[in-house]
Amino acid sequence: MVAGIIGATGYVGVELVRLLLAHPEVSSLALSSVSFEGQNIVDVYPNLRGMLRGKTDGVLTGADAVVAAADVVFTALPHGVAEQYADACVKQGKKLIDLSADFRFDEDEATFVEWYKKPYAFPAMHSESVYGLPEMNREKIRKARVIGNPGCYVTAATLALLPLLEKGLAKTDCVIVDAKSGITGTGRNPSEKNNYSESGESFAPYNVGKHRHQPEIARNCSKAAGKPVNVLFTPHLLPMSRGIIATVYAQTVRPVTEEEVFAIFAERYAEEPFVRVLPLGDTATTKNVRLSNWCDLSIHVVNGGNTVEIVSAIDNMVKGAAGQAVQNMNLISGFPETMGIDAIPAAF
Amino acid sequence: MVAGIIGATGYVGVELVRLLLAHPEVSSLALSSVSFEGQNIVDVYPNLRGMLRGKTDGVLTGADAVVAAADVVFTALPHGVAEQYADACVKQGKKLIDLSADFRFDEDEATFVEWYKKPYAFPAMHSESVYGLPEMNREKIRKARVIGNPGCYVTAATLALLPLLEKGLAKTDCVIVDAKSGITGTGRNPSEKNNYSESGESFAPYNVGKHRHQPEIARNCSKAAGKPVNVLFTPHLLPMSRGIIATVYAQTVRPVTEEEVFAIFAERYAEEPFVRVLPLGDTATTKNVRLSNWCDLSIHVVNGGNTVEIVSAIDNMVKGAAGQAVQNMNLISGFPETMGIDAIPAAF
Amino acid sequence: MVAGIIGATGYVGVELVRLLLAHPEVSSLALSSVSFEGQNIVDVYPNLRGMLRGKTDGVLTGADAVVAAADVVFTALPHGVAEQYADACVKQGKKLIDLSADFRFDEDEATFVEWYKKPYAFPAMHSESVYGLPEMNREKIRKARVIGNPGCYVTAATLALLPLLEKGLAKTDCVIVDAKSGITGTGRNPSEKNNYSESGESFAPYNVGKHRHQPEIARNCSKAAGKPVNVLFTPHLLPMSRGIIATVYAQTVRPVTEEEVFAIFAERYAEEPFVRVLPLGDTATTKNVRLSNWCDLSIHVVNGGNTVEIVSAIDNMVKGAAGQAVQNMNLISGFPETMGIDAIPAAF
Amino acid sequence: MVAGIIGATGYVGVELVRLLLAHPEVSSLALSSVSFEGQNIVDVYPNLRGMLRGKTDGVLTGADAVVAAADVVFTALPHGVAEQYADACVKQGKKLIDLSADFRFDEDEATFVEWYKKPYAFPAMHSESVYGLPEMNREKIRKARVIGNPGCYVTAATLALLPLLEKGLAKTDCVIVDAKSGITGTGRNPSEKNNYSESGESFAPYNVGKHRHQPEIARNCSKAAGKPVNVLFTPHLLPMSRGIIATVYAQTVRPVTEEEVFAIFAERYAEEPFVRVLPLGDTATTKNVRLSNWCDLSIHVVNGGNTVEIVSAIDNMVKGAAGQAVQNMNLISGFPETMGIDAIPAAF
Repeated sequence: MVAGIIGATGYVGVELVRLLLAHPEVSSLALSSVSFEGQNIVDVYPNLRGMLRGKTDGVLTGADAVVAAADVVFTALPHGVAEQYADACVKQGKKLIDLSADFRFDEDEATFVEWYKKPYAFPAMHSESVYGLPEMNREKIRKARVIGNPGCYVTAATLALLPLLEKGLAKTDCVIVDAKSGITGTGRNPSEKNNYSESGESFAPYNVGKHRHQPEIARNCSKAAGKPVNVLFTPHLLPMSRGIIATVYAQTVRPVTEEEVFAIFAERYAEEPFVRVLPLGDTATTKNVRLSNWCDLSIHVVNGGNTVEIVSAIDNMVKGAAGQAVQNMNLISGFPETMGIDAIPAAF
Repeated sequence: MVAGIIGATGYVGVELVRLLLAHPEVSSLALSSVSFEGQNIVDVYPNLRGMLRGKTDGVLTGADAVVAAADVVFTALPHGVAEQYADACVKQGKKLIDLSADFRFDEDEATFVEWYKKPYAFPAMHSESVYGLPEMNREKIRKARVIGNPGCYVTAATLALLPLLEKGLAKTDCVIVDAKSGITGTGRNPSEKNNYSESGESFAPYNVGKHRHQPEIARNCSKAAGKPVNVLFTPHLLPMSRGIIATVYAQTVRPVTEEEVFAIFAERYAEEPFVRVLPLGDTATTKNVRLSNWCDLSIHVVNGGNTVEIVSAIDNMVKGAAGQAVQNMNLISGFPETMGIDAIPAAF
Repeated sequence: MVAGIIGATGYVGVELVRLLLAHPEVSSLALSSVSFEGQNIVDVYPNLRGMLRGKTDGVLTGADAVVAAADVVFTALPHGVAEQYADACVKQGKKLIDLSADFRFDEDEATFVEWYKKPYAFPAMHSESVYGLPEMNREKIRKARVIGNPGCYVTAATLALLPLLEKGLAKTDCVIVDAKSGITGTGRNPSEKNNYSESGESFAPYNVGKHRHQPEIARNCSKAAGKPVNVLFTPHLLPMSRGIIATVYAQTVRPVTEEEVFAIFAERYAEEPFVRVLPLGDTATTKNVRLSNWCDLSIHVVNGGNTVEIVSAIDNMVKGAAGQAVQNMNLISGFPETMGIDAIPAAF
Repeated sequence: MVAGIIGATGYVGVELVRLLLAHPEVSSLALSSVSFEGQNIVDVYPNLRGMLRGKTDGVLTGADAVVAAADVVFTALPHGVAEQYADACVKQGKKLIDLSADFRFDEDEATFVEWYKKPYAFPAMHSESVYGLPEMNREKIRKARVIGNPGCYVTAATLALLPLLEKGLAKTDCVIVDAKSGITGTGRNPSEKNNYSESGESFAPYNVGKHRHQPEIARNCSKAAGKPVNVLFTPHLLPMSRGIIATVYAQTVRPVTEEEVFAIFAERYAEEPFVRVLPLGDTATTKNVRLSNWCDLSIHVVNGGNTVEIVSAIDNMVKGAAGQAVQNMNLISGFPETMGIDAIPAAF
């Protein structure tokens, strides 16, 4: 199979390159970049030297060449750019997996416009696109032609909350998601925020109450609960490169025990290849999922059984972005779901 | 004045050394250490070479010699050891400021025993000891002979919540404190937890629902509210050395505006020398308080006015420990409250 | 093939576990640990949960059971313990790859005793053991039964110097190796040195002129040069987990050009699967080899052609330890040399 | 005294602000910024909130207003901009301390032009300017009107080499300076280089053989030796914010002992208020000088007495920049040399 990446030189793009170079069913890779068109990706990312494995010569082309060459196209671009490629792919009988927010809101254009300040240019694409969280939408994903890959924080938070909400165990008036992310989430473009001198040895929240992942988490939660869920979301920036912890607080409709909640999670995720429900007593941590597609969930019942606290850990670049996109590629392509994304986490 | 430090070679102890060497009213320092008795503190902490300023020769003695020499004694010891020195100080007409938990619960021995597994050996000391959070107890501190210096997380969380609880604005059934601390909080003793290979480039909560600072925060909150406050406290360990962020979520009894909450905080802390209520729109961050005695508070009203989110930032070693202890020393000694602890935060 | 690891819960041991779990020719893994015998490695390293792939149940046994079960045994132990297992392996027709210093000095017991303060207990083992640097000893390794895996600093330094010394281009009176390592090199045991509060945001040399890797580098260099080479070696500890940079300074016997030196390196390593000689103008960096078995070498001719400066970058846990050990296993087992250790470096 | 800072919002500028706000003899501060003119420095650096101490209202003006208001002007600007302000200051009877490279080469315009690609615009200024390394030029500094503050690497390297070269003990054909700096050295402007995702958990040299501090080190060394010294300089970037280690290798003209070299250093720096010659056996480290104006030097004689290795540690922002500039201000103003820059190093 030929895989294509439009936007191969951003962090998400090159993480896709890293994963797809090692994917057994991807025989060829087509890569584009606006910033580095005409250059070789090995010169932009010298870690790739000697690792292209005959799948690509490394030369970065324009986006159209990628669409033309690939069976499955990944778009790893700023918000608001992927729609045109989705349209082109569908017209040419190809599939597209978008890693921006463009296809995360399906037909709910109003919410997209409210948070991303841009109308849909190709509404038909949003009618058929599928939200690519396999733990929610696996069967729809298998048949999709256009997939909107979830946000990183969203993945961590949603997986922490699904079982509780589906069972009607959580009160829906104020679910709190206190989330912390490594700095790779700010991307390759240098900024004051990701300057080591500003971000190393420091920690703070940002965009309190205003982060664009909030409506996406709320939408997922509301679907799971079957009614509107009010989500309070606070992201923080960690002085480290990779990893997200979402510490999630849900008030329960009745007192619960840890064993009861554990059983619900264990059952809900029993067949999931990328969710580990940790034994009671353990606590999820980013190092145990680093560079892997795992989402680790640890369960803590506090406040006399009236609050369930879930700690959710993912690697923001893998399960939070490129790894989940490959998981989606596997699903739409009929490959084994874990193929190429079964790396053992590097704990140190 | 002669200041003494029992336990001068732990991180809190040596932070006291650093501050007191620069304190204009401290003419002499007496230092003890169990681990390094007979050695010179300059050999344990070579950063102090050439910096003793004639206040000490640096030789680490036993504890009794410190009590004998000092006017004010600081105890920076494991829990359960300070009582005897408090008794000795009071008998000798000296004052003691303890940085362990021993004097944080006043006469509430039951709570202390529940969380610290040790009865009071000198109950009389707890009858007269004062909890050393100046923003709550300034006048009592001025007259105290024995002071229990607050916990680091507790300081950050309490200052975030006091104004809301005093005004009766926050619901008291479930206040959430999601706190994150730098690694110096784990102390000088090496452990798996503070091994760089384990703690660098990683992040996780610990002791979820079981941290000993929970009852101390709850007690402070209950005093402020005038009724029991249920506090849910989750500490996390950050991959950095210094700094605490407490992200605090309080549901309000009625919808509020940011301006209203800001006004309450601004008024409550108007005279406080070490609390900065940040302008609306700003967010507290550890770097802006690093190596200073400031507590920065930023105010965020979310959830349609039904939730107040306060971000509280301190340096865990300064306002969270040694700096606050010096603030207490200044109060009991009649010195200007900011003397020797007015360093400008080192933002990078 | 059954692979066994004696000392599976140290950092080097568990890095071997990570690599061998993913190795296509290793069907089964036998694991021992003194500290955690009887426990499951998943409880010690929760990153391994769900990743054992039927190769092991994770239970940590004693060492003898590993020797009995395995075809190839890895010893990842403190210095001075591996000899007995080498003897046992050879007697039972098995092979052993030792990751301590025990088999790095072949029959030169005097040097071993001088630096490691311990005589050889099984001299016969040292008569047949082979030093496991494939770039020096590939053919001998293929036939060996006992292999001494090189030190981490040694690997980086030796690969930087071999081509120059073999060609007689470098003066041998004072080759300088200024090396810097990530903290995983200090191992799993917590110490003051690897406490984050001491090692984060700080940097320093250690063991100046006294590090045990000095004689090993000197021996390798002398072999390459065919005469004694005097090596000055200074290790430093970096505030990061993984990676070594060796900045190597060699004075030349005559002025040289960068192009000339590049040609020598390119030719010397043309067939090497794990050495990348970077294009002139590039500089080796740890991030480009992270979590891979690559050694990156960049060439800089300075001082008017009279000094060659080589920057050598490896991942200390992979090419500097476990990865090179697997490379050796591949060689003695007749597997493709890169099997199981061809991961793409994770640059961030 | 009124101090002025032109370029107060870069890292060096704001470090000057931090130091001068605490300086007892500076009663008033005038601040300018091109990027933030008209704004308040408290909004750019919120750590300064509440810390201006009546010395400034924080409003950032243009450069001319600073020259007009100040008795001593600091220029913390890109290279090639300070000359005009030097001229203006001298004409108005003021003094200027420049923290760029503009006044580091005195009348040697040729070297400046070779490395900085710009001719002198005000040659007269360079005839009278003095190179501001107090350990070399204290008496000249006292009388100077224009001072060129040394480079950060240069300060660390020069102090390590002066005693050896002045005594004629070091061979001058190839002194090696292998130096490592924290990331604050790259400044406030975000770049790929200082993006945490690139620079955290990674390490590498840069500008090998081409760094602009090389000619400055060589010039200082040559002055000390009384003849040309050939310096080989390699800078590296550390994954941390502050601190420089220069590991310096000098071949000796005859075998020496550590005691002998220690005695030479101890004598040379006996009266220096900011140089600590560490006891033999100790090793200099950045944490022991952090946030202080100290330069720590440790002495290691290796290679049978034929090589002296000096480890030099400074805080690049203090002794390497702003602290040394204040030291120079103290000298030209007749204040005690340590005034305002005698902070105790913060080791963690």
